[in-house]
Formats: sequence, structure tokens, C-alpha cells
Amino acid sequence: MSIKRERSSPVPTDGRASEVYRTAASIILQKGYDATSVSDIANALGITKAGLYHYITGKTELLFEIMKYGFEELDREVLEPAQGIADPEERLRFVIAAHAHLVLRGDGAVTILVDETRALTPVQKRSITRMKRRYIDTLRATLDEIQSAGKLRDVDTTVAAFSIAGAVNWLSRWYKPEGKLSGEEIAANVIEMILHGLVKRRR
Amino acid sequence: MSIKRERSSPVPTDGRASEVYRTAASIILQKGYDATSVSDIANALGITKAGLYHYITGKTELLFEIMKYGFEELDREVLEPAQGIADPEERLRFVIAAHAHLVLRGDGAVTILVDETRALTPVQKRSITRMKRRYIDTLRATLDEIQSAGKLRDVDTTVAAFSIAGAVNWLSRWYKPEGKLSGEEIAANVIEMILHGLVKRRR
Repeated sequence: MSIKRERSSPVPTDGRASEVYRTAASIILQKGYDATSVSDIANALGITKAGLYHYITGKTELLFEIMKYGFEELDREVLEPAQGIADPEERLRFVIAAHAHLVLRGDGAVTILVDETRALTPVQKRSITRMKRRYIDTLRATLDEIQSAGKLRDVDTTVAAFSIAGAVNWLSRWYKPEGKLSGEEIAANVIEMILHGLVKRRR
Repeated sequence: MSIKRERSSPVPTDGRASEVYRTAASIILQKGYDATSVSDIANALGITKAGLYHYITGKTELLFEIMKYGFEELDREVLEPAQGIADPEERLRFVIAAHAHLVLRGDGAVTILVDETRALTPVQKRSITRMKRRYIDTLRATLDEIQSAGKLRDVDTTVAAFSIAGAVNWLSRWYKPEGKLSGEEIAANVIEMILHGLVKRRR
């Protein structure tokens, strides 16, 4: 019973559950979903298979939980706080910065895995699609507000929203912590580029 | 012997080889590399396994050939012609447009598969890394030229190059041919955004 509860409503603030998801995500990325066994993940975490089953009920369920974990982080650290920012340009800046921070913090594996939906059930797939849409909708609504204020360049807000998502998600594929620029500097560069690219009359 | 020759230097203009690579790429994307058999690919192409072995020597080899095929297309349609464009701003515009065209034409599966390098041998991996680098280097060198002419905004050219790559590659994940904007319109929007985002003193 306690295992079931753990699975169906994971506590987002449980540090151990986060570790399970992050570790599992990076192994699945390295080896591929099909080639990864539950034992591989337990070994990497230094726990027994039985111990791992405290957090998960099976491999497919785990894949779904990892993705859900990623979107719950995005919700908590990006989308929810964004709702409190009245000025759309400031909100846009915040969404890009906070999302970049999430990706650069090392949750890249989680981000990339979000595309491995083929092993999911139809219900799980629809759930992931809904979560992706919420993120894009937040960006697009913010861009629509900037447009209504006459401050957006002549670009389609849907194309702009997906292009922002692409540029930020791509960070996880090339960012190396040992590189010449810090994560903060990279994020600042991306924000500069995007805001100049989209918003009129900036310095 | 003829099979070996076919494999080690595939003719890029052979329409049938292209069809093999594109079909195989989309099946691998749907089912995952590990779960895809050579028979699955032969079935989808409507040929026998023996017929397919005219084009490939094995599954890992096929994965590598698909990626190589993608980069050869990129070379032929984007990087090579770009070398003939003297003005760096025009070159940047061309690279983005031609790459977007490639992605939107439906070679999305090939593009995405380029990240599935885990099944490759170390030698094959290094080869893919070199090809990725050539693309990024072309973008960065072009941005460096714009910078030398004093026309680039205050952004790091490496960050800019990868952000462009991200925005354009991401197109394959969300573009639907039946959507409200045509591929041409979407590409034009992406170019507008990126050029305003990077180049100073534009209208």
C-alpha cells in the first residue's frame, strides 16, 4: 500500500525520489530504454532492486514518472512563479532564465528523455502532451500580450514559442560545466538574443 | 564484394539508398533502436531482408549510415553552397533557411536520430562528432565575421551558434505539414527572429 502511494503521488520534495529519477534518466539516455534493466538503475544508485521498488512499480511506470518529475520541476520553478509577474516582457525574461537554469543545473537527461514517449501507454502519452502544451501555452500567451502592446516584432507567436523552447532545451546537448562560460553567462546570452529577436525598440 | 563497396561508399544520389535511410530512421524513432529488427525495416520498405542487405551490412552499420546520410545532405545542401556566399549576413540567412528547409522537408527522423549515438562504435562516434562540429564551426565562423564587421550584438558566438542549431533542429519536433503556416513561412519567421536577435541596426 505504501509503495502504491509512493508511486501514484510522488512527493516532489523527496530528495531521494529526485535522485532516483535523475540517475535513472541518465542511465536510460546512455544505454537506451530497452537495454536498461531495473537492476542497472538499482546498481547505479547503490541500492537493492527491492529498495528501488519502493519508488517505482516497473520500468514503463518509471519512464513516465521521470518525465512527470521533469514537468513538475518546470511547473514549480518556471510556470507557477511566472504567473506572478505582471509585465509580459519581464515574464518572458523570467521563463527563459528559469528554464535555462533548470536545464543547465544538470537535469539535462530528464529534459532529453521527455521525447522518449514511444514506450508509454496512450494515457501516459496524452498526459505528457498536455504538460508540454502547458509550457508552450505559457510562452505563447506571454508573447501574445507583448504583441497586443504593439511591442512584438512581426513574428508568429507559435513559431516564436517553439523556437525559444528549442534554443533552451538544446542547451542540455552542448553545455559543458568545464567550458569557458558559466551557466549564468550562457543563459544571459540566450535571453539577450531572444529578447532582441522578438521585442521591438530595445537598446 | 559489391555489397561491401555499397556500404563503405554509399552513392548519395541513389534515390533508393535515401529511401532506405529515411524509412529506417522513422521506424527506429517510433520503436527505438534496440526494438527495431532488420526485418521490420525490410517489411516497411516492401523488400526482402536479402534485398535490404544490398544496402546495409548490419543494424549498427545502418544507424551510422543514416547519420552519415543526414550530414552528407547537410553538407551538400547547406554547408558547401554557403562557402560561395561572400557576405556573412547573407550567408547566415542562407544557412538557416537551407537547414530549416532540410528539416521541414521531412528528414526530421534523420535529424533526431543523430543524437542516438550510444549504439555506435567509438570510431563511428568520433566521426559523427566531427560532422556536428563542422556545422557549428560554419555558423560560428560566419558570426565571427559579422562580429569583426562590428555588426553583431554583444553575444558569444558559440552560444549563438548552438542556439541557432537548437531552434532549427527543434522544428522537426513540432512542425506539422497540415498546420496553419507553411514550411516556408515558418522558416522566414525563424530567420527574422534570429537575425534581429543577433545583428545590429536592422529595420
